[in-house]
Amino acid sequence: MDITLQSALDYAGVATFAASGALMAAQKRQDLVTFLFFAAITGVGGGTLRDLLIGAPVFWVQDAGYSIVCVLVAVMVWVTRGRGLAAPALLWLDAAGLAVYAVVGASKAMAMGVAPPVCVVMGVLTATFGGVIRDVLAGEPSVLLRREIYVSAAIVSAAVFVILRAFEMQGIWASGIAVVLGFGVRAGAILAGWSLPPFAPPKGKD
Amino acid sequence: MDITLQSALDYAGVATFAASGALMAAQKRQDLVTFLFFAAITGVGGGTLRDLLIGAPVFWVQDAGYSIVCVLVAVMVWVTRGRGLAAPALLWLDAAGLAVYAVVGASKAMAMGVAPPVCVVMGVLTATFGGVIRDVLAGEPSVLLRREIYVSAAIVSAAVFVILRAFEMQGIWASGIAVVLGFGVRAGAILAGWSLPPFAPPKGKD
Amino acid sequence: MDITLQSALDYAGVATFAASGALMAAQKRQDLVTFLFFAAITGVGGGTLRDLLIGAPVFWVQDAGYSIVCVLVAVMVWVTRGRGLAAPALLWLDAAGLAVYAVVGASKAMAMGVAPPVCVVMGVLTATFGGVIRDVLAGEPSVLLRREIYVSAAIVSAAVFVILRAFEMQGIWASGIAVVLGFGVRAGAILAGWSLPPFAPPKGKD
Repeated sequence: MDITLQSALDYAGVATFAASGALMAAQKRQDLVTFLFFAAITGVGGGTLRDLLIGAPVFWVQDAGYSIVCVLVAVMVWVTRGRGLAAPALLWLDAAGLAVYAVVGASKAMAMGVAPPVCVVMGVLTATFGGVIRDVLAGEPSVLLRREIYVSAAIVSAAVFVILRAFEMQGIWASGIAVVLGFGVRAGAILAGWSLPPFAPPKGKD
Repeated sequence: MDITLQSALDYAGVATFAASGALMAAQKRQDLVTFLFFAAITGVGGGTLRDLLIGAPVFWVQDAGYSIVCVLVAVMVWVTRGRGLAAPALLWLDAAGLAVYAVVGASKAMAMGVAPPVCVVMGVLTATFGGVIRDVLAGEPSVLLRREIYVSAAIVSAAVFVILRAFEMQGIWASGIAVVLGFGVRAGAILAGWSLPPFAPPKGKD
Repeated sequence: MDITLQSALDYAGVATFAASGALMAAQKRQDLVTFLFFAAITGVGGGTLRDLLIGAPVFWVQDAGYSIVCVLVAVMVWVTRGRGLAAPALLWLDAAGLAVYAVVGASKAMAMGVAPPVCVVMGVLTATFGGVIRDVLAGEPSVLLRREIYVSAAIVSAAVFVILRAFEMQGIWASGIAVVLGFGVRAGAILAGWSLPPFAPPKGKD
């Protein structure tokens, strides 16, 4: 059952990130092929890095379904001309993908027997790297450098999941709670501008 | 024989992309070491990603010949001071590398037993990622965002090859036809400005 | 003993690069989480690429100690508010990391039975890629494109180590000499502005 759950979440994560990639291509007025490329790279980028790092076979190379999901999502965004998917949608899809993927990444790393703290790192990388690659390739300032909370939300999702699982909570409950909390933190950043204090250099320096 | 063919195409692809990397370094008036770095990273970048994704040993780590080819190409571009290799040459070498590498990538993935649709993706990534990394590291706008056809040419090469091979055409013929068609599409983009229609947002939006 | 030495150098390399990543975050007035992210990615980026390329298990996934070192370094830079670690410190830490990591990378590749010329490449990639990723993610012009000697210092470290080891010099001596020479070359670049001649296009061109 855990495997079914993980697979469903994996598909959901890929689809939401793929949509955020396709919307970035739409913002840049790109053609359909670039839609496909951005959807694919944003959709599977983080999970690919996770699989390479933990030494697992890369998930979408094993299962052509993921590539097909990315193509479908890209075509859907193109055909609907992004109706109902304006700039805010990009933000919210990205937030959902972030929370879901952090849990998926941490969960897959745990299944491979990776140590808990590294599982948290793996969840965070899985969740954030698709978006980081998307921004770098689009020539946008990386989401890492924006003042608002982003990576922190992934840390919350991944850490909550790893801790709840360490206390042997069932996968479906641990995933649900972790996703809701991580998404909530990111929602706070989007709606209320939550942020962490920036670095303040000592007086008389810099 | 197929292995010899693949190896020859692999060297050809590495050499042409290495030259395009070295020419980028020349445009930026860099020193010889940067020539080497850009030649190597552009030359082997796409194939490296392919090998990591399909779980094959990375080709140039196994065979020092590829590193030597990159060094030779970088030194040759440096010594000849790029004579006969002005900005247009960068474009055409890149086009040739694109068509050849898409076939090489798809072919190697097929040999590893990867599913046909994923083989096409692998061919496209192999062909485009060296150039994408080159552009990102050089701080140039990625070729992905230019309006003209680029990734599409790699899709044509890789897809034609995978389809012809599925009909059991001999490797050398399938490769030849796929390379010519992919190169032709890219040539149309360079010479005649072929492009796909850009995304048009619905009226009253954006 | 060689393994202990390599492990000690590995930790030293990770810590110095992590500090350079955290200082980049400080320069950009980022929050603590971004400090962690930049420290980690700069600290383990080069070694991660090395391990993926030579097919070794990724070092920090196997041993949670490396992640902890990155967290400690990031927190230390944050808490001390970078006192005593102004812009010059970023340069010198980076230089030390460069020389140490080139040797660590080449040494680990040799231990995996990789051919000597490829071991040099591996040392250079290991040493330079953390910084390259740091610059790309921070939106800074890559260190690769600055005129001063940088990659060359890593080549000196890695090549000297590989050659001395080929003559069967003990690991600790070969490492020491290689690190001192590589660091010396980079120090010359920082203090005296050493650089290699840039590419000069032929007259009447470009």
